[in-house]
Amino acid sequence: MTNNKTPITACMLIIGNEVLSGRTQDANLQFLATRLNEIGIRMAEARVIADDEAGIIAAINECRAKYDYVFTTGGIGPTHDDITAACVARAFGVELERNEIAVNLLAEHVGRDNLNESRLKMAEIPVGASLIDNPVSKAPGFRMENVFVMAGIPKIMQAMFASLRHQLQGGEPMKGLSVSSLITEGSVAAGLSAIQDRYPDVEIGSYPFVRVGKLGTSLVVRGIDEARLRAALEEIKGLVRSLGGDPVEETTA
Amino acid sequence: MTNNKTPITACMLIIGNEVLSGRTQDANLQFLATRLNEIGIRMAEARVIADDEAGIIAAINECRAKYDYVFTTGGIGPTHDDITAACVARAFGVELERNEIAVNLLAEHVGRDNLNESRLKMAEIPVGASLIDNPVSKAPGFRMENVFVMAGIPKIMQAMFASLRHQLQGGEPMKGLSVSSLITEGSVAAGLSAIQDRYPDVEIGSYPFVRVGKLGTSLVVRGIDEARLRAALEEIKGLVRSLGGDPVEETTA
Repeated sequence: MTNNKTPITACMLIIGNEVLSGRTQDANLQFLATRLNEIGIRMAEARVIADDEAGIIAAINECRAKYDYVFTTGGIGPTHDDITAACVARAFGVELERNEIAVNLLAEHVGRDNLNESRLKMAEIPVGASLIDNPVSKAPGFRMENVFVMAGIPKIMQAMFASLRHQLQGGEPMKGLSVSSLITEGSVAAGLSAIQDRYPDVEIGSYPFVRVGKLGTSLVVRGIDEARLRAALEEIKGLVRSLGGDPVEETTA
Repeated sequence: MTNNKTPITACMLIIGNEVLSGRTQDANLQFLATRLNEIGIRMAEARVIADDEAGIIAAINECRAKYDYVFTTGGIGPTHDDITAACVARAFGVELERNEIAVNLLAEHVGRDNLNESRLKMAEIPVGASLIDNPVSKAPGFRMENVFVMAGIPKIMQAMFASLRHQLQGGEPMKGLSVSSLITEGSVAAGLSAIQDRYPDVEIGSYPFVRVGKLGTSLVVRGIDEARLRAALEEIKGLVRSLGGDPVEETTA
């Protein structure tokens, strides 16, 4: 980042052996990164970590000090391998307590007679945390200072994010423009680097692709000032044309 | 892990602003985790990090000390935002040098006349590194001690992994068995925890799902001893039946 304003940053901790074993493909990073971008928060790092107490606690403490916001997904269910809430409590040096609001939410959802000790575990929240509403399956997430603890199931995670979004203090949203052509990276690189040097406030990225058997490159400009992005993109289009390419603006960046 | 043998571990560093902005969905972690599992190497952590020199160097140095193997993807192309090779060199305290084998590979691929300075950047390899063959687009990856540097494009990354696989020293492969039913996590949790206590050498995971509108749970056992996995799975099937469920063995774990 070469903006003179300090960007607001976030880190995501994806907690779960199932992602590290290859059983499950994470689908939450892309969703969260995109939504945060829209409100001017930059995903600066994401980590996939195992269901291991010491590792989770260390990651939480490192990342909550380093970034403005930390979002965790996974590990807040009722089974023995769901240890996120306990780890957050230990990371903050507080106890877990049975949260009455959470107990009532669960009781409404599954019936008070079905509220066994395992399900009640989902109402064990670190002292001082505030609940994050879960309209899908009721078992709440929670916020502890700048750490937001969410479910791993994408549908529930997305609903929780909608519930907590108003609590986030964003900055200037990052915007993006993008152009693609069948010019290869190796041809465009030198000219692109010169444009980057003239636009230190714009982040220029180059992403090769293969489409219908042809090699090409998407060139992306990202930043907070739309006029500067447009100017940089026009220079890039001129560069592509000068190399014999036909630049096509893309709808996503 | 409760095996008495120390597992062989790996960490993956996914390098690229495009994954952190939500533009691109990583597809390499699942592939690499699965392939490493097959040869008895456990993916212990994965990090998605930005195209930022200090951050990349710090992550490489932290992770190469902490894990047996480190695999990076992304940032080895010809453009200004491709800085992985330079960062690996700095992390190891060595210089980059133009590798003649790599130059010849690139020359064969694009023609010596098209070998501009940008493309030659892909032949700049840290002193002491060995090349990783890239049968798809020739520009090689490289290995520096326990750090394997690969391309981000999945097709190329997979081809590079096939090229380097024989260099890895694996352990006992992790095997997995899995059973699903429409019993919910909250019902099965207590019994499952008791089974986990009796099988400390088996890693038992519980993953809720929604299928055709019904809530259910996949229960997964993972470990190196197939007989122990089978025994644990049979106990889990008995537990599911005792709760009125119909356990169905799944083909993947």
